[in-house]
Amino acid sequence: MHFFDQSQIASMERIYRMQMINSISGYKSATLVGTQNSEGLCNVAVFNSLIHLSSQPPLLGFMLRPKTVPRHTYANLKANGYFTLNQIAAHQIADAHHSSAKYPEHISEFDQTDLQPEFKQEFQAPYVAQSPIQIGCRYVNEYHVQESDTYLIVGAIEQVYIKEGLLLDDGWVQLDQGDVVTVNGLEGYALPKLLERFPYARPKTS
Amino acid sequence: MHFFDQSQIASMERIYRMQMINSISGYKSATLVGTQNSEGLCNVAVFNSLIHLSSQPPLLGFMLRPKTVPRHTYANLKANGYFTLNQIAAHQIADAHHSSAKYPEHISEFDQTDLQPEFKQEFQAPYVAQSPIQIGCRYVNEYHVQESDTYLIVGAIEQVYIKEGLLLDDGWVQLDQGDVVTVNGLEGYALPKLLERFPYARPKTS
Repeated sequence: MHFFDQSQIASMERIYRMQMINSISGYKSATLVGTQNSEGLCNVAVFNSLIHLSSQPPLLGFMLRPKTVPRHTYANLKANGYFTLNQIAAHQIADAHHSSAKYPEHISEFDQTDLQPEFKQEFQAPYVAQSPIQIGCRYVNEYHVQESDTYLIVGAIEQVYIKEGLLLDDGWVQLDQGDVVTVNGLEGYALPKLLERFPYARPKTS
Repeated sequence: MHFFDQSQIASMERIYRMQMINSISGYKSATLVGTQNSEGLCNVAVFNSLIHLSSQPPLLGFMLRPKTVPRHTYANLKANGYFTLNQIAAHQIADAHHSSAKYPEHISEFDQTDLQPEFKQEFQAPYVAQSPIQIGCRYVNEYHVQESDTYLIVGAIEQVYIKEGLLLDDGWVQLDQGDVVTVNGLEGYALPKLLERFPYARPKTS
């Protein structure tokens, strides 16, 4: 196996280290976050740090990078109080990835890609049309992680849309039936196929 | 599409809601966390919330559930100060999932599965043998997320082992070359294949 210790990692070229550290953490969710500003201009950006926090109350979280550069998603969700989380299907990956390009604030990524905003049920933020899973969230809180100068954003789930055919009788959502993708590092999009769904694990009895 | 609003989600049967909320957040990393206690008894448990926090300094994080029930992983990493993160290959999924069974503290999950502990370079926690990516971490800090009563554990990367054939010239690690799996909800293991790796996204010029 390749081996790297602390000092070898510290002395790596910056981009090389960024690529490696971002990919060794394993596959991550790739999620489009939709927001709008007070003038109704819509923003969409891809994030790869969505995590489950709680099912009762239903809460999700994601990490935002430092506030030292403009972050339209953060400004919008703080001002407006609402945002959407949209899972990415295989046919959307090129546009989803392009949403990470740094456009000026007055330009909507929806206008620079084939992604379309979709307003539903009077929710205060745009969903991404054709996304197989769409989640409407209310901003709840944020936690500053001082070691990385990043913020964990906590959102409460208020609306859930799931494409037909994915939702099983017991509430489990089979993601590969919607061609939902996952991300490898910052820029590699991969399509999973289910290997096996196990029952709840219980200790072996001897 | 299926639609659920806040009150419908709140009134779902508990297990149904847990399955749904855990799977709509998309694919998550499946990682074996290895620890040992002061008597040298090894513990291994699967977590699905590993996130990237920073590449310089190299930091990863994962969520721990409430402290209201015994959490051997947490007790060990706090007492010992070190833990390992091990990516799961397709051939390891049944054992990885079984590591989530609640065994008493004096029983090691390594003895109840075919997973083998591997001590390397005098690191103070066991790696999981045959894992295609093994990461040695030092406990740095924790943040209490009050809304979910969960804890974000922050770890500093001190050692990295990567199986031959996965590490590309620019530092990117191609996970599907190691049959690294991802998890759908709490118990569905899926195997991704790379669709496309994109270059860094830049704004279109008109």
